[in-house]
Amino acid sequence: MPIKLGVLVSGRGTNLQSIIDKSVSSLIAAEVAIVISDKPNAYALTRAREAGVPAMYIDPRTDKPILTGEAEDDYIRFLKDCHVNLVCLAGFMRILKGKFIREFKWKIMNIHPALLPSFRGLSAQKQALDRGVRFSGATVHFVTENVDKGPIILQAVVPVYQDDTEESLSKRILLEEHRIYAEAIDLFAKGQLEVRDNRVIIGGGNG
Amino acid sequence: MPIKLGVLVSGRGTNLQSIIDKSVSSLIAAEVAIVISDKPNAYALTRAREAGVPAMYIDPRTDKPILTGEAEDDYIRFLKDCHVNLVCLAGFMRILKGKFIREFKWKIMNIHPALLPSFRGLSAQKQALDRGVRFSGATVHFVTENVDKGPIILQAVVPVYQDDTEESLSKRILLEEHRIYAEAIDLFAKGQLEVRDNRVIIGGGNG
Repeated sequence: MPIKLGVLVSGRGTNLQSIIDKSVSSLIAAEVAIVISDKPNAYALTRAREAGVPAMYIDPRTDKPILTGEAEDDYIRFLKDCHVNLVCLAGFMRILKGKFIREFKWKIMNIHPALLPSFRGLSAQKQALDRGVRFSGATVHFVTENVDKGPIILQAVVPVYQDDTEESLSKRILLEEHRIYAEAIDLFAKGQLEVRDNRVIIGGGNG
Repeated sequence: MPIKLGVLVSGRGTNLQSIIDKSVSSLIAAEVAIVISDKPNAYALTRAREAGVPAMYIDPRTDKPILTGEAEDDYIRFLKDCHVNLVCLAGFMRILKGKFIREFKWKIMNIHPALLPSFRGLSAQKQALDRGVRFSGATVHFVTENVDKGPIILQAVVPVYQDDTEESLSKRILLEEHRIYAEAIDLFAKGQLEVRDNRVIIGGGNG
């Protein structure tokens, strides 16, 4: 039986699309049960509906990049109602706080377009270009209350070329994001991920 | 004509040995003109002497991880007397300050056992293991007054395995350190490195 995913989105949903495609093709042992957006017009919602996946907007009830306590309760309730086993952030632009994290302890993943701990926060690709690194990449990690500081599940490396633009580097990283996000979800679904001392042990489970 | 290197060391000098070996084999367009240590008993001094390279201890005159102004003047004078074109830090455990940096502007390189900007400072390999990253590596960069923050010349990536120890990871990284340090020195010697907006452009020179 595939596990049930709840995917939180704010934008165009390229990672969501990749997850849906791989789920439909049974490349991952997971299916998207619900997509929730904090933006009513996120293109990700359209993608979900076109794929026949339930998708909804839930008002975050604040302009700050967080959810209010009430909004948070709504998000949690809908995810629980859909019997979600794993919450995947896919370009969700709000910071989750203590209650949400505790409700889904070690059951929330995020993807970040850099080799964490380098280039936390926004515009990670631009940060990498500005710093002049020769390699960057992507990181899937469990979400904790400290943004971009949770236990690392998988990473992928890409070269940075001298003539790269933010767009060309972002594209190269995005391909790797799709690949490792799917792999991380599949490992989770198969019980292969265990958090020990804030590190992720792969293959420690019963899968 | 090979350029002349001044290599500053504090410890066992594995990177120094690699540079000497590659210089002797003409794998890099550079020769070690002088090795200076802040520790009288650094094994690196022995290595230098055994290779027939002038090597000396210069008292840093402080227990802090810096050079006093007087000591700094001595280091600069000896490097200048040897007509050094490039200063290579190879496990030199003291922070260079403004005067030294200005005297050898964009002519001081260091090697760091991590993918900067991740894991600056000491015990970078242990920091990487503790953080649970899947990849680490090495970085050659120009030295500025901000420790480990200078323009990046070359980087190399290595995988981090779940059963890695600080020792096993350090060994894997060290092989890459040797490789990219030599390559960076050779690029410098051939006039291929140019610093622009705190980034290093390779092939921008006249070499």
